[in-house]
Amino acid sequence: MTDRSLIDSRPAGPRFAPWLAKTNPFTSRNIAAASIPGLINLSGGMPDPSLLPAKALSAIAAQAILDYPDDCLGYGPTPGLADLRETVAQRFRARGVPAKAENVLITASGTQALDLLGKIFTTSGDTIACEIPSYAGAFDAWRPRNPTYRHLGLREGRDLAARMAGAAFTYMIPNFSNPTGYLVTLEERQKLLAAARVSGTPLVEDDPYGALFYDGEPLPTLLELASKGQENLDDCPIIHLGSLSKQLAPGMRVGWIIAAPETIRMLSTAKQASDMCSNGLAQRMAVKAMQTGLIEECHPRIIALYRARRNALCAAMARHIGDYVRWEVPAGGMFVWGTLLDTTVDVERLVDLGMQAGVLIGPGEPFDPLGIVPPSIRLSFTYCDEAKLDQGMARLAQTFKAMGVQPGARTYPATSPSLTS
Amino acid sequence: MTDRSLIDSRPAGPRFAPWLAKTNPFTSRNIAAASIPGLINLSGGMPDPSLLPAKALSAIAAQAILDYPDDCLGYGPTPGLADLRETVAQRFRARGVPAKAENVLITASGTQALDLLGKIFTTSGDTIACEIPSYAGAFDAWRPRNPTYRHLGLREGRDLAARMAGAAFTYMIPNFSNPTGYLVTLEERQKLLAAARVSGTPLVEDDPYGALFYDGEPLPTLLELASKGQENLDDCPIIHLGSLSKQLAPGMRVGWIIAAPETIRMLSTAKQASDMCSNGLAQRMAVKAMQTGLIEECHPRIIALYRARRNALCAAMARHIGDYVRWEVPAGGMFVWGTLLDTTVDVERLVDLGMQAGVLIGPGEPFDPLGIVPPSIRLSFTYCDEAKLDQGMARLAQTFKAMGVQPGARTYPATSPSLTS
Repeated sequence: MTDRSLIDSRPAGPRFAPWLAKTNPFTSRNIAAASIPGLINLSGGMPDPSLLPAKALSAIAAQAILDYPDDCLGYGPTPGLADLRETVAQRFRARGVPAKAENVLITASGTQALDLLGKIFTTSGDTIACEIPSYAGAFDAWRPRNPTYRHLGLREGRDLAARMAGAAFTYMIPNFSNPTGYLVTLEERQKLLAAARVSGTPLVEDDPYGALFYDGEPLPTLLELASKGQENLDDCPIIHLGSLSKQLAPGMRVGWIIAAPETIRMLSTAKQASDMCSNGLAQRMAVKAMQTGLIEECHPRIIALYRARRNALCAAMARHIGDYVRWEVPAGGMFVWGTLLDTTVDVERLVDLGMQAGVLIGPGEPFDPLGIVPPSIRLSFTYCDEAKLDQGMARLAQTFKAMGVQPGARTYPATSPSLTS
Repeated sequence: MTDRSLIDSRPAGPRFAPWLAKTNPFTSRNIAAASIPGLINLSGGMPDPSLLPAKALSAIAAQAILDYPDDCLGYGPTPGLADLRETVAQRFRARGVPAKAENVLITASGTQALDLLGKIFTTSGDTIACEIPSYAGAFDAWRPRNPTYRHLGLREGRDLAARMAGAAFTYMIPNFSNPTGYLVTLEERQKLLAAARVSGTPLVEDDPYGALFYDGEPLPTLLELASKGQENLDDCPIIHLGSLSKQLAPGMRVGWIIAAPETIRMLSTAKQASDMCSNGLAQRMAVKAMQTGLIEECHPRIIALYRARRNALCAAMARHIGDYVRWEVPAGGMFVWGTLLDTTVDVERLVDLGMQAGVLIGPGEPFDPLGIVPPSIRLSFTYCDEAKLDQGMARLAQTFKAMGVQPGARTYPATSPSLTS
């Protein structure tokens, strides 16, 4: 029997896994931000609330539960409801991708897709190849697996197959990368696909922003390029991720992975180990939203609003912070990436002082696990209206001045493509 | 540049992480089962569809989106909506637990809670202490973290603090363990709590079946015992898991973890890395279901139906398979655990032949990572009506006979508590 006199000699608390010591301060800062009245939040990739089709989704939700109570309220299949897998596959077939339901796994958000990929492809110490900087949330998702990172060097013209070789997988956001907003060119896409085929490395194409082209026609995805001349996806080197978060409503937490059947089976085993199955009602709502054209109905308003805000933010940056930051105008997506002209600026301090001055911006550091990117900031233009975007940049300019940052040589608009809308 | 002539010398496909080789055949078997007409499924822990309150939840869903569009459709806080965290905390305070919102993390199901616990407490090779057999889904959730297991030996009277010492955490299902249906006694609960305090090991109390007492009054949970004389949960060694899956609707995927604030913060970081945030509509529906008493309204029907089915299954077992299996009648939960009298039976073959004969049962092996449990089966009584339960046991008896299994000495009802309802 246990000696009960020992009970009061309290032992130390729980030991937490080492990866938890390496997380970034995003969450705590965002929680603090929520309680600051009047704060202009340019930090997250949040949709404008006015774009959420609440009335339509309310009616869809009510009817879905009555029509499909077991699908909505009971346990569902781990890889997703059969109707939703097939509906997603149809939408890809309409774009020339030979996808069947067996090529589709439904996820509870893009973040879950990243977590599942880490689970099936990596063990501690494995290498992931990607552009640096890249999405901080992906690095968050993979941190519990303790990977190392290798910079791909796409824009520097590196030998991509050599950079991919031996990696557990390669990660890319070809359409308006988070954080840089960069649109990978068609030629670069072809090089990426060829390199994936040569190296035998799975190439993850994360495409949350593929519907958010503001200038010109969408480019073909890596998955579409890989599908040319193929009858199925059995040998496809591309693993394609998408979601409803930017097209309909992020709170639904509905995303998908398109991949070879064997990869989908492994992902399903990982999903069984992660949450057993996704919320059924959200999946039924997704089927209805796809089949009734609600997504296409919402699209023009999203594009018009975000294009105007992209333009407004870039104009406000030129007005207020062009002496401190250079940037490229993104042709789509949600973010403008700014590189500081003065590379000695302490960006964490800039963010903290900006928050005190009433504007929350994102620091570049969480997007750079290798520490190779010059001091940078990420600005989101989707959540705030044009007046707030202007005021936010004015507050940021005040913060630069208060920190005593010396103005650099203005580069705007020399390095930026012209605004085309 | 990459040598494009190499493209057609296809390299091997993706390398998958080693843990994927160790999964059990549950999923593939259940998928195969779904396409067999007339199969009597006693394998999963599924609710009876007639108990899902579809009309009430349809109305709640429609109104929730109209009343709280941002909560339901936008990104939400990672640890859960503030209203739901507070509502859950209130329900625990009503049972004497000094819980505040900061002690509550909302999860997308009990499975996600297990995944998050694995992420924050274990690194490869760490030890988890638990009763063997224990929940196969927990072993699934932890497999990507590659832990080792130590049998606690509660019912054998082992020194619990010694067995817990050095483990990353201890895992228990005190109310109607999955798979055994065992109800941990009050004295055993007190010993477990004392041992957790002595050893300094977090003790995870998984309580999905706490509302499913069919005989007698509920026993206090470990969390309630640990709360005695405490003003807060800061030093609480218990991490308590619950969900709506057995009380309302599993398809909602709403669960919770109650723990010390530091543990909740770590779990929130792990959740950010897993799915960023849970489905917002389901959380709003959960608040409403708790505040309007819908859960309490559903409860008597659930208890009456499942108690009758528990009785029917045990009576059918006595009628048909009492020569082959011994069991204890569980006082609650969803499962009856049967130990084969002939320990030479190949249980995997029994399951496969049973499936061919039209009844799907669960094999014991996935519940036993140490290989120490005698050949066993798990039978769920919640999904099928009484006629099917009887027919299922008749088919299982035929399967035993077809396999040539020799009848053993009947033990029913000698080892079983009397049926009390």
